[in-house]
Amino acid sequence: MTTPPREMQIELRVRYPESDPMGYLHHARFFEYFEMGRTELLRAAGYRYRDLEERGVFFAVAKIECRFKSPGRYDDELTLYTRIERMTRARIDHSYILKRGEIVLAEASSTLACIGRDGRPQPIPDELYVDIPADDRSRPGNLSMP
Amino acid sequence: MTTPPREMQIELRVRYPESDPMGYLHHARFFEYFEMGRTELLRAAGYRYRDLEERGVFFAVAKIECRFKSPGRYDDELTLYTRIERMTRARIDHSYILKRGEIVLAEASSTLACIGRDGRPQPIPDELYVDIPADDRSRPGNLSMP
Amino acid sequence: MTTPPREMQIELRVRYPESDPMGYLHHARFFEYFEMGRTELLRAAGYRYRDLEERGVFFAVAKIECRFKSPGRYDDELTLYTRIERMTRARIDHSYILKRGEIVLAEASSTLACIGRDGRPQPIPDELYVDIPADDRSRPGNLSMP
Amino acid sequence: MTTPPREMQIELRVRYPESDPMGYLHHARFFEYFEMGRTELLRAAGYRYRDLEERGVFFAVAKIECRFKSPGRYDDELTLYTRIERMTRARIDHSYILKRGEIVLAEASSTLACIGRDGRPQPIPDELYVDIPADDRSRPGNLSMP
Repeated sequence: MTTPPREMQIELRVRYPESDPMGYLHHARFFEYFEMGRTELLRAAGYRYRDLEERGVFFAVAKIECRFKSPGRYDDELTLYTRIERMTRARIDHSYILKRGEIVLAEASSTLACIGRDGRPQPIPDELYVDIPADDRSRPGNLSMP
Repeated sequence: MTTPPREMQIELRVRYPESDPMGYLHHARFFEYFEMGRTELLRAAGYRYRDLEERGVFFAVAKIECRFKSPGRYDDELTLYTRIERMTRARIDHSYILKRGEIVLAEASSTLACIGRDGRPQPIPDELYVDIPADDRSRPGNLSMP
Repeated sequence: MTTPPREMQIELRVRYPESDPMGYLHHARFFEYFEMGRTELLRAAGYRYRDLEERGVFFAVAKIECRFKSPGRYDDELTLYTRIERMTRARIDHSYILKRGEIVLAEASSTLACIGRDGRPQPIPDELYVDIPADDRSRPGNLSMP
Repeated sequence: MTTPPREMQIELRVRYPESDPMGYLHHARFFEYFEMGRTELLRAAGYRYRDLEERGVFFAVAKIECRFKSPGRYDDELTLYTRIERMTRARIDHSYILKRGEIVLAEASSTLACIGRDGRPQPIPDELYVDIPADDRSRPGNLSMP
């Protein structure tokens, strides 16, 4: 039996309206990118978030934080690394690194809660569980990706 | 019996992330403003678009056009004039003028179709009908607002 | 001597925050997609819009219109066809078709004006001119793309 | 001599395209609201962020975090409380509470760095300093607002 992948990377290009009068990728847009990272990590595991929602499985962001290290600019080509750091019965912690080449633009982490159509917590479906090595579980928020 | 108002104005301030690297209000944002104008015109008539959606009454944009005359900038205070130009059994035509003081930033018009939860056309609820003078009906797209 | 390409297609996937409470790709977002189509058409010609801006060459949207035929939804994979319909000394007309498979979501057209850093009209740089067959020039707004 | 205000509240209404297919205010949008809170707090002190940028004074978000407590929905009327928690020579810490009536939607905090047009750190202009009681300085991140 295989387990879904725990991390992945996607490529992104900064769009014009995502950039602000300073010429920088607006800080609120980073969170949209992180969501795309989660979506693609889920897709790599064989699931589509849209289908989950149709089944009544929603993931709501409970907590998110981001440290901005260096600005992005319009038309930059960026790489986003997304990793699952921890999964409990009803929550998932992800970490993110957004880079342009070797330059780190941002490091971030989030906690998502699995909820139903009524907004109430519900267990994460079994098939979405990711196997995380025990020694790693002891380092939540670890960001050792390249 | 009163009829709902046919036109109204709202005040808006351009937000930072609505402005692009040129320093201008991004052209796609104008359409979000026009939607706000329609929402407030509906509210002035005593209806809330959110409630209509809960009742299964949706308005989908079928056609929209905009002529951009002068740029808006971050933190500008703008006035949006929204007017109903025509209503048929299932469609509404609006016109819009967006201004900063006396300067016209944009003139626009749209056609909305009333649809149900299934996406199919349905008649506009009677209570939303607006009385438009007959002589004016002959001038669709008329933009004589101040 | 080669001339820059006159049309091209790009693939897009609808992002979660681009979709509205109806579950549909919000109509204002289409205009961001069209801008991406123009950017990639320019890139295919060997130019980067970001570099043009650094040289003081800006393209401002003067007029845009869109007919919405069928809704897009979150996670849809779309194809956008972008074509130059006409170029004058200072203006470019584009047409657009956005599709999901064989289904047309929208047809649109726009006019862009070339301006300088001061916002005043300026001639389009010679190297950006696209050769458009004479018989086609007589059909502005033509949307015969597949 | 007066000192600029240290906290303030603003009223907001959730816009349609700010809401996602779940019907909720999208989590990335909260950060745009927090930025509006900072802008209005600055305005209440007699300064306009747009003017500061023209003088070459920029504030870049260095760090931001948010805990989401309860969802917002389209057309909700919200109150945002923004407060300066700490100021150093080159950084400002803000805290935020976003509420709908008595319900807390989110609590957040951020650190902004003052930078110049070249992206390098520079001292915050003297006139922007806010007087924060000494005993309060010892409680950064404090969120005791109503």
